[in-house]
Amino acid sequence: MTTATNTGWGLIGASTIARQYMVEAIRAQKGHDVVAVMSSSAERAKAFAAENKIESPYDSLDALLADPAVQVVYVSTTNELHLPQVLAAAKAGKHVLCEKPLALRVDDAVQMVRACNEAGVVLATNHHLRNAATHRKIRELIHGGAIGRPLFARVFHAVYLPPHLQGWRLDKPQAGGGVILDITVHDIDTLRFLLGAEPVEAVGISQSAFMAKEGLEDGAMSVIRFDNGVLAQLHDAFTVKHAGHGIEIHGDAGSVIGRNVMSQRAVGEVVLRDDAGERTIPVEHEGLYERGVARFCAALQGTGEPAATGEDGVRSLAAAIAVADACRSGSVVRVSQINIGGIQ
Amino acid sequence: MTTATNTGWGLIGASTIARQYMVEAIRAQKGHDVVAVMSSSAERAKAFAAENKIESPYDSLDALLADPAVQVVYVSTTNELHLPQVLAAAKAGKHVLCEKPLALRVDDAVQMVRACNEAGVVLATNHHLRNAATHRKIRELIHGGAIGRPLFARVFHAVYLPPHLQGWRLDKPQAGGGVILDITVHDIDTLRFLLGAEPVEAVGISQSAFMAKEGLEDGAMSVIRFDNGVLAQLHDAFTVKHAGHGIEIHGDAGSVIGRNVMSQRAVGEVVLRDDAGERTIPVEHEGLYERGVARFCAALQGTGEPAATGEDGVRSLAAAIAVADACRSGSVVRVSQINIGGIQ
Repeated sequence: MTTATNTGWGLIGASTIARQYMVEAIRAQKGHDVVAVMSSSAERAKAFAAENKIESPYDSLDALLADPAVQVVYVSTTNELHLPQVLAAAKAGKHVLCEKPLALRVDDAVQMVRACNEAGVVLATNHHLRNAATHRKIRELIHGGAIGRPLFARVFHAVYLPPHLQGWRLDKPQAGGGVILDITVHDIDTLRFLLGAEPVEAVGISQSAFMAKEGLEDGAMSVIRFDNGVLAQLHDAFTVKHAGHGIEIHGDAGSVIGRNVMSQRAVGEVVLRDDAGERTIPVEHEGLYERGVARFCAALQGTGEPAATGEDGVRSLAAAIAVADACRSGSVVRVSQINIGGIQ
Repeated sequence: MTTATNTGWGLIGASTIARQYMVEAIRAQKGHDVVAVMSSSAERAKAFAAENKIESPYDSLDALLADPAVQVVYVSTTNELHLPQVLAAAKAGKHVLCEKPLALRVDDAVQMVRACNEAGVVLATNHHLRNAATHRKIRELIHGGAIGRPLFARVFHAVYLPPHLQGWRLDKPQAGGGVILDITVHDIDTLRFLLGAEPVEAVGISQSAFMAKEGLEDGAMSVIRFDNGVLAQLHDAFTVKHAGHGIEIHGDAGSVIGRNVMSQRAVGEVVLRDDAGERTIPVEHEGLYERGVARFCAALQGTGEPAATGEDGVRSLAAAIAVADACRSGSVVRVSQINIGGIQ
């Protein structure tokens, strides 16, 4: 078991998100450090290690997993690689924080959860939005009855994919590209968190306007029915610069609005509207990834649960795949029943 | 042919909308007056006539249509009555301004348009939102290129059905109750007007939360693909008090937002967001129904087109029915091809 004072992390994937957010988030935890990084390009691993003062660059997964200084891995490679890499990490006895989507198929994601359970390692999914002070406040308001019975949700997550990310997301179906697996999966996980409810079925229409190629979508509008009766509409895109982003939950007694809250940064505001009028609800912002890593570290010590477990990753993926299938087929698609095996 | 100085209107239906908006809107037109009102209840017709200083109350359609003082009828009965009443009015040589939805079936609405064409009378649909200064400004901005290529639209029209309207809309499927025929049809007509494009196909999920009965829906979320590639998401409901209402069109170069604009009243504002920032675009409000009636009166004189023609009523109905069918079936539904017969 890891200790609180000397836990080494290995990065599987020398990615933008690792560089922009995760190295700092990990190092913000007492006793935790990033000690290794792996990229299939040795050059890239070395450059990333040098830039981020990481001791050991590797160009093979086996080499990183064989490093005794590594007790935890953070996986942020392209999505098709998550399955083999997480299975290998579990086999090597490493705890795993994995980027979303957990995998490209629900069965693969279930297999990852089972493998980690059986190996006795913690698996968490890096759905950052659950950690936002804004979303936690919205959840608290809903569960406290502030809007009465929730009836509808709206998620606005149509953004412009910045040029430095205009890579595999736009032209690699085999890597899990497209806006649905990239963004819709976050919306769904956030709704599951806010509502405390599970998606049942989905319909949708996707668009390939001008960015995405190879049959991938760069925009999608979908509707999801949850098991508490709530209908949610989602709008996700890579192609619009000025649409703004946010989330709204409307109940029979009030509405709670999160403005500018579908972000990696600790920003945005929460507004509550009811018979008494409209007012901004104060939130104390904190770093989303820092809090996610802190929750993960607590789970390592047995003093808590990850913000988004492996099972959360499976369930949010299953609903995102239902949206993708609905857009492809034109028919309502029921979300796959998840059977982890009762271990999680 | 009617003249500009002496045109008598007969109201078919002593309705809330006639009392709240239309009598005043008609009398605001130079030379036009409301001279007759018909209700299946003689009591109701008399009370309405007295309250609104209308000369002739009738309890039969034939009697109203036989009144030589009536050259134009305004139809605002429940929706299943529009077909026989408009056919009878056309046969009697009366011009017709008809409430939406034009009918309950596309074929019926087509029949109404053909009958009016053949009788040489003007038929218009009372889709008021086309007349809002806000929507006209949004249309002007879009067509002027302010947002680049339009990619997405969002329509928020989830409101609370006021107690005095909580009647047939909630429990009479045979009268065209339910939120889709009542509100979604307005959203669609507005989008057709704003985009200058036609709906192609729709998906959706409806909800019956606590207001609607008899299999009717009191909430619906839908997605419509237009023939210019735009995807639109619509949220319509009778059950939420604080969701607000508005419309947004997002393009690859900017977004135009109409806040508080899905209203019968001359209210709301228009905001444009692009690389230069966000600013409110000034609009000169005017009464929506007044302008609608004025456009209709111009058409009577041969000096213009109604804001929403009979054909507009057919096309907007066809797409609303596609949404309803999609919600019922769970499958994408293509909007019916409209064949008026080349006369309109």
